[in-house]
Parts: sequence; C-alpha cells; structure tokens
Amino acid sequence: MPDVLQGKGVISGIAIGKVMLVSQNIDGYLAAYDAGDSESEIQKVHEAIRNVVADLEASVEMLKAKESIDRAAIMEAHLMMAQDSSLESAIIDKVTSTGSAPRAILDASEEYAAMFEAMDDAYLKERAVDIRDVGRRIAKRLLGVPEPELGDEAVILCGHEIEPSVIANIPSNKIGGVILGQGSTTCHAVIIAKARAITTVVGLGKKVEAIKDGTMVLIDGDEGEVLINPDERTITSYQKRLEEQKRQQEHYAQLAPLPAITTDGVKVQLAANIGSADDVKSALTYGCEGVGLFRTEFVFMGKENIPTEEDQYLAYKKAVEKCAGNICVIRTMDIGGDKPLAYLDVPPEDNPFLGWRALRISLTREDLFIPQLKAILRAGVYGKAAIMLPMVISVTEINQVKTLLEKAKNELIAEGKEYSEDVSLGIMVETPAAAVMAPVLAKHVDFFSIGTNDLVQYTLAVDRVNHNVAYLYSHFHPAVLRLIYTTIKAARDHNIWAGMCGEMASDPAAAVLLLGMGIHELSMSAPSIPKVKEKIRKISFEEAKVILEAVLQLETAEEVKEYLKNNL
Amino acid sequence: MPDVLQGKGVISGIAIGKVMLVSQNIDGYLAAYDAGDSESEIQKVHEAIRNVVADLEASVEMLKAKESIDRAAIMEAHLMMAQDSSLESAIIDKVTSTGSAPRAILDASEEYAAMFEAMDDAYLKERAVDIRDVGRRIAKRLLGVPEPELGDEAVILCGHEIEPSVIANIPSNKIGGVILGQGSTTCHAVIIAKARAITTVVGLGKKVEAIKDGTMVLIDGDEGEVLINPDERTITSYQKRLEEQKRQQEHYAQLAPLPAITTDGVKVQLAANIGSADDVKSALTYGCEGVGLFRTEFVFMGKENIPTEEDQYLAYKKAVEKCAGNICVIRTMDIGGDKPLAYLDVPPEDNPFLGWRALRISLTREDLFIPQLKAILRAGVYGKAAIMLPMVISVTEINQVKTLLEKAKNELIAEGKEYSEDVSLGIMVETPAAAVMAPVLAKHVDFFSIGTNDLVQYTLAVDRVNHNVAYLYSHFHPAVLRLIYTTIKAARDHNIWAGMCGEMASDPAAAVLLLGMGIHELSMSAPSIPKVKEKIRKISFEEAKVILEAVLQLETAEEVKEYLKNNL
Repeated sequence: MPDVLQGKGVISGIAIGKVMLVSQNIDGYLAAYDAGDSESEIQKVHEAIRNVVADLEASVEMLKAKESIDRAAIMEAHLMMAQDSSLESAIIDKVTSTGSAPRAILDASEEYAAMFEAMDDAYLKERAVDIRDVGRRIAKRLLGVPEPELGDEAVILCGHEIEPSVIANIPSNKIGGVILGQGSTTCHAVIIAKARAITTVVGLGKKVEAIKDGTMVLIDGDEGEVLINPDERTITSYQKRLEEQKRQQEHYAQLAPLPAITTDGVKVQLAANIGSADDVKSALTYGCEGVGLFRTEFVFMGKENIPTEEDQYLAYKKAVEKCAGNICVIRTMDIGGDKPLAYLDVPPEDNPFLGWRALRISLTREDLFIPQLKAILRAGVYGKAAIMLPMVISVTEINQVKTLLEKAKNELIAEGKEYSEDVSLGIMVETPAAAVMAPVLAKHVDFFSIGTNDLVQYTLAVDRVNHNVAYLYSHFHPAVLRLIYTTIKAARDHNIWAGMCGEMASDPAAAVLLLGMGIHELSMSAPSIPKVKEKIRKISFEEAKVILEAVLQLETAEEVKEYLKNNL
Repeated sequence: MPDVLQGKGVISGIAIGKVMLVSQNIDGYLAAYDAGDSESEIQKVHEAIRNVVADLEASVEMLKAKESIDRAAIMEAHLMMAQDSSLESAIIDKVTSTGSAPRAILDASEEYAAMFEAMDDAYLKERAVDIRDVGRRIAKRLLGVPEPELGDEAVILCGHEIEPSVIANIPSNKIGGVILGQGSTTCHAVIIAKARAITTVVGLGKKVEAIKDGTMVLIDGDEGEVLINPDERTITSYQKRLEEQKRQQEHYAQLAPLPAITTDGVKVQLAANIGSADDVKSALTYGCEGVGLFRTEFVFMGKENIPTEEDQYLAYKKAVEKCAGNICVIRTMDIGGDKPLAYLDVPPEDNPFLGWRALRISLTREDLFIPQLKAILRAGVYGKAAIMLPMVISVTEINQVKTLLEKAKNELIAEGKEYSEDVSLGIMVETPAAAVMAPVLAKHVDFFSIGTNDLVQYTLAVDRVNHNVAYLYSHFHPAVLRLIYTTIKAARDHNIWAGMCGEMASDPAAAVLLLGMGIHELSMSAPSIPKVKEKIRKISFEEAKVILEAVLQLETAEEVKEYLKNNL
C-alpha cells in the first residue's frame, strides 16, 4: 500500500503523474550564488526588477490578447507589486545587511508578505502569496533559474503555496493536478485551477514537504487524498475510476447539446457562473444556456480607480454577445469590508458579512453605481442582458435602484448613447429577509436568483469560512429548504422566474429538490453542468415532487442527507 | 437660546444640574508636582500602586457585601490590572525617561491603553477605558487629588470617557446624568448607568471639551441633546417635561403592583432582564414578575479560570430565591469570539457574530457546560428555575443538550446533591433558522424566548454595532415581524409559552403587535416595564389584533413605523 496523505479535495477527479515542485527549486541556485560587492548587487536588483516588469507587461498583453481577462488581472496586480518602490527600497536596504542580492530580494519580500499575512482581513492575508510570488520571480530572474521544463506528460504541480503565475502560465493540458500545503479554497491558484477544472487537493500542511520532485503520485480530488508512489495494484484499482472519469467526460460532452429536461417534459435552464467574459467560451463547451451570474468583482478589483463606464460596457457587451440570445445576468458590485478597495473607502468592520457591502455601497455611491448601470443598459443592445442586485433586504432598496435606473437612462439619452429598454431587473435572494418577503418582493422585480452561500450563512448564523463552525453549514438544513421553497413559490405565484446561483445549484441531489419546488433555472460553475443535467434528465417532475414532500417532513439536515442518499 | 450640543441619547429622561468633569481634574496637580530623584519617584510609584490595590480590595469587599455583584466584578477586573506586573515595570521604565512618577504612570498606562485600543476586537478595544481608569487612579492617589466632592445637589458627570469606577462609587441620588464624548453604548460606564436608570447622552466627540466644570447644563436623554447654560425660559419649557417625568415616575410606581392586563382581560407576563442576582431587587420595584433573561456572562467574564459549579450555584440560587415563585430563566453561556476569555481559547474570527459562540462552545466544552447545567438544576430547588439555550439552529443541538442534562443529573445523584426535576428547558429564538423551524422545535422544548437583537441582525444581515449599516436595522422590518409571528403561532399550536427578551420587548408600540400575535411574556431591562405595562393596560386584545393585521399588509419597516405612529 502506498503512503496516503490526507488533505481536502477542492476540485474533483483523479490524476496520476510526476510531481513538479514549484516553490522549492530555487535553493540550489541560491547556495551556488556568488555575490559581488554591494554596488554591483544593487545594480543586479534593479536589473532583475526591470526584467520582471517587462516579462509581466508582456504576459498581461498576451493574456489580454487571448481575452483571458481574469488571468490578465492577476498578472496586472503582480506587475503593480513588482513596480512598488517601497518593496524595491526594502530590498536595497537588505542588500547591505545580507550582502547577497537574491537573498535580499527573498528576505524583503518575505517580510513584506508576512506583514500582509498578519492582517486580520482574509483578502489582504491572501495577498501574501502574490507578494512572495513576485519576490521569487525577481530572485529567480536574477539567479537565472530556468522556467519549469515541461515534457509531453502532464505534471502534478506541488508546493506549500503555488504562485498563481506558475499555474496561469502553463497550458491546461500540461497540468494533471495541483497539490497545495495551504488550506484556502479562495486563493488565486485555486480560482484558476477551478476555472480550468484541474483536480486539486489543498490543506496538506507540513505533509507537503514529504513530497519530492519527480515522485509519482495519484491524487483524488473527491476524497482529498494524495497517494505517494502508488503501486501497480493501486493504480489498477483507480484505473477503473480513471476510465470511468474519462467515460464520464465523454458522456458529459455528449450531453452538452441536449436540454435539461425531465422524463415528463419539464425543462430547467442550466446557466453558468462566470467571472469574466472570456469564461463564456469554455462554459459553452459544458452546454450552458446563458449566464446566470456574471460576477463583476474582477472589473472592480486590482484597480487603482473606479473602472470607467466604457471599460465596463466593453466587458459586459462581450459576455452578452457570447451568450448568443440566451440571458446574461450581470450582478452589480458585490464587494465589502472583507475585500477593501482603495477607492471604496470601506472602514474595517468587526463583522464584514453583516456590514456595509454590495448594494448598500452602490446605493450611497452613485459615482460607482450609475456607470455600472449605464454600462449594462448599453450592453443590453447586443443581446439579453439582465441586472441583478446583491444583498437586497427590502422593497425600499429596489425602489431606490429604479430611480437610479431612470437617471442612468436619462444620462444615456442626453449623451446620445444607444441602450436597451428590455434589460430586466432581478434580485439575489440571499438574506433571510428577502426569502421571507419574497411574496412581496416578487411584485417589484422581474426575477429571483437564490444565492445559497449567503442565505445559508445568515439563516444558520454560520460563517462557512470559519472552520470551527463549518460543520453546522448545510444547504440541506430544513430552515434553508423552507426559505428556498417560499421564494420559488412566490415567484411562481407572481409569474416571474426563479433561479439559483449558489453552490447548492451544482449539487445534483439538491437539484432534484429544487426541481420539485418548481425552480426555473440553475446557474453554476460550468464544469458542474453535465452532472446536474444528467440527474434532471433521469428523473420525472412528479418523482421530484414526491421526494420533496418527504424531505419537507424531516427535522434536521442530517436526516435530509440520509434520506436523499437512500432515495436518489 | 442656549448652546445645544447634539449627541446620542442612550438612557432617556431629562436632567438639570452642574457639570462635574471627571476625567480632566488632574492637570493642575500634575503641573504643580515637584519630582524628587529617580529612586524616590520609583518608591512613590510602588506606594501608590499598593494604596490603590488596597482601595480596590476594600471596594470589592464592600460591593460584594452590598450584593452588587456586577459592580464588584468590574472593580475586580481593575484590581487585576493594578496588580499587573508588566504595567508596573512599564511605569518604572518611564520614570527614568520622564523623571516624574505621576507622568510615568499616566504615559505608561496611556501607551498600554492605546495598544488595546488599536485591537480589532470590540471587547478588548473597550478595555482601554479600564486601563486608563486604573492608571489615573494610581496617578491621582500619588498626587493626592481629592475624590470628587459631592454636595447636596446631584451632579452631571461629564468626560470624554468616564472611568466606570467613578460612576460605580457615587450613590445614585448624587448623579443626575452622564455626558460622554465617546460613542459606545456598551462600555462599562453605560452599562452601570443603564442599570441605575441615569439619563445619559453619549457620542459628543470633541464637543465634550467645550463643557466646563461647574457649568449648568440640561441633558435630554430622549433627543440626545446637551444644553449649555440653559436660560430661565428654556428651563421653564423643560420644567413641564421634568414635572411630567416626575409624575410619570410616580404613576409608574403606582403601576408596579398592578398586572399587565388588557382592557378585555388578556394577561401578559412582564419580566426583567438581569446581569446578576442583585439586579432582581431593584427590578422588583419596577413591578417585574420574575426574570425572563438572566445573562450569565458576568459569571464567566473577568475571571482567570472557569467559574466553579459552586460559584454558579450560589449566584443562580440567589436569583431564583429572589424571584419568589415567579420564573427565573437562566441563559447558558453566551460568549464568543467578540469577547474572548482566556480559558475559552476562541481563536480570533473574521465574523464573530457568525462564529463559534454560545451554545456551539458549550456543546464542545463539557468542562464548562456540565457545571453550569448542574448549578442551575441545583438552584431549581429554591424556586422556579428554567434553562434557556442561546443560538440554537436545530433539533440536533437540543437533543445533545438533553443528553448532557441527563449526564449532569446522574453526576448530581452520584454526588448526593439535591436538584430539581422541574427545571424547564427552553431556547432563544434568535437565528432565522430557529424562527423558520419553530413549528418543529416547539415539539422539543418547554418554551421559546425570542431574542430580537440577534434575530434582526441575522435576518437583515446587518451588524447593528456597525454605524455604516445601522440605518437598515429595525425590529419593524416586515420579515422580522413575520418570523416572530411564525414563532409565537408555533408555540401556541404546541401549547408552550413564547416570550421575548430582546430590546424590542421594551418598545410599547412593538408590545402591541406582539400582544396581537399572542405572546405570553415580555422580558426587558426593568426600568422599561412600567411604560410597556401602561400600554398593555390601555388597549384591548381585539384592538391589538386589528392593528397587527393592518401592519402585516405593509411592505417596509418605514411604513410600519408610520402606521404605528398614526394609530397608537
């Protein structure tokens, strides 16, 4: 039996391959480095930074040309860090004390990163990885460390943290899987891996250091396991799952053009959650019908200033066009105290999830909100755009938005810009208040999209990122199911559509319950679409209703899970 | 017209009197201080600390004898700070640099306080006030500053922050009112003022510095106003309200022995929220019938170790006895990441209100929870005790508590300790999950008590302490009203009692709606009982139901408030 390291699976699948260590392959070069006098070392620092800045600029250019807007945004953030003069002078200071330019670079960027890491804010904390990435990049450039050499076989990238730039710069077909020591599921490396459906296990902690470069490993993204040097028998035992996985993928590919329709003819629209317009292309290969959630965070993040109406218009227009007649639901800015932006000026908050965020900011910052509304209205000319408001708790807010929409339209008319009058207005139902008030809110909007991540969080008073209480977090909690049912019934009663764009939508068992409740649309990360579609195509609406009725009698999330396990 | 300074009224009423500045009267002594050599200054520091420790010990003793457990707890916390050797050595270090013992004391304690103030945690932040208090106390002792001289007239205490010890040590009838520059409504000074119903205005900021010692002021705790040197005419205009206030107080005193019963004979039980057993005595003067919420936080806070079963038993027994046959509802520990305790070991959390707190901690820490359950069961022998669980979200938790209750009883039997089998078990309904699931939870417990502070917070996703979103916080939000109604109906359907112990219970207009919903009990800070009782005695149950029905048709909190204003 091979050694098994237990981590946490974040992106499912099985992958076998040789490990490529991506964070540790610099030590040898560093040991062999022959430092010159202080002045020449300082010259080398300046030169290395100049080179890295040039590399990054080229990367950004290239990614933008390939329309990889999100990857480009990450590289742009790195570019800004590389150009940060306070980091540069900290490095120069260190040259004097260490005598070695690469050592100075690594030490100074490590100290800088540690400072971020010590911050309470989860978002800033994670920026530490980016700073280390940039520091190592500069040091490697100076040391002449060659870029990872990729052969024909896909490798398993492994490190305590992996620099997002490393993943971003390797073609998908060369990466079999990813193993991370750190446990965050929202770091940049994981975000990129998820968008590219690369099997990933995180949270191995110090155990990751036991994995040597070139070792053969098997990683199981469903169980969160890493098997070191799996023997023939083990591989054979997984071979079945691997073949199954391949068959599954082929099967899913065949499903792509088929509709998500029950055996008794009830159709559910399956849409994609995207972070940028260029995600639509790959989402379409999974068979999405439109976009149920365009997260506009990337448009707002990593910028020094408020993005212009024009920048936003171009991004939204592209997404709308790519949806080719299907709906493209664009959520307005959903950022708050946990992801501070310089131009937002959100003070630090004790409980950012209950704070000044999302629509609450938009409604007091017309300089942010009006350009976004105008950009969406203009993009609407090129297809079927919809505006979706996050964090709504009352009719008052909807009325305020309607007033601002009128203002936006009047400005567009005055400016002689073309826009669409057919852009629908909907809300995220993600607070208990919105779910409870759904019968009232339904009278005021064109659609609901249930955001289960926050709805579960607020209903159960559980921060799902907090591992001490994560065990309490479940979208199968009967209170959550009841609130969702109330929402969908209210939409049906008022002839508007109800969808879901939280993680629950990608759970096939949950999809059956939602189908029984009468949901119209499910939006999810595109790779999940086929498995949900398959479940829907195998069940009848009548069966789903029977299962739902039985589940609604149960008292706890555990009972619901048990019932679904036995009856689906 | 006199100058009017606008603050925030936290404890209502009108008070007129001369200002006694309580934070600034040390500067003259300091300027006149004649420092000796370094060694003699250090001697003086040691001596002053010894004296203050002795003073505090005497204070604690005295307050305990007077059964002022909560005030004693605050003084005990100060005692610990005064004995803190790291503060003492910081002071000694400063003596060398400043040459003056009192200056060293003030500077060192200021730096120490600033360190706390810079912390993210709201609870630790506020400890800065206590540290400054202790520092000033030591400095004053050394300088020989006389204690505030109180004449016959009650004074208006005023300062940017007021040291809790100052308020705690002045008899109630000598304090007419309190004015604070700082804006917290949960600092120790405000807690003490509230328990003693002293008219208080906070949040004046820098404006507080304009108020001179001995100035005549009029403070309006309802409007949050401070009038400087009010002229005869102004005083006369307030005289009416003052007389009204006096009449009101006399009228309320007459109401105390009367039941809270509607004109058509429906009775509501009005109980008190207390923080320690000695609060019952004063609560009874306001006419409370029992205790609807005994916050056991004081039993757990300001201690180095877990409080023993015996300590808790004595505290609960006393409260139960004082309730003299009326119910005494004891809430189990309700502490979390926002109020860290050394022995709890709760890690810092990004969103403590959605974190590992209250019952969630109790269920994983039997060493804390079993002694508390045992103490309550034993106290039950002396009257009508009830156990109330905070932060419940599911039946699973209730079942876990029932198992632990059996364990606690078995231990008591084995130890030969007497306990009551008649201690009822209820839950706080303070999460949306509990309210939505009330029809299920009602089958498993003996009573519900609706905790509106948290229920509003989670339902609306609004941290009420965060002033950027406080405008969204309202217990009249229709979603909140609907969840409360669901809870009360579920209790009625299952023949258990439903009460409320959040701030909403002390709002007479809200009480009418709750009456209409069929609530059995309202628990509040005792001074609010008379005004709620009066409202209930003036209305009929039938009228309340009509008002409720009308309110349930409204779509927003603003509409509800408007309707109640016009119809009550």
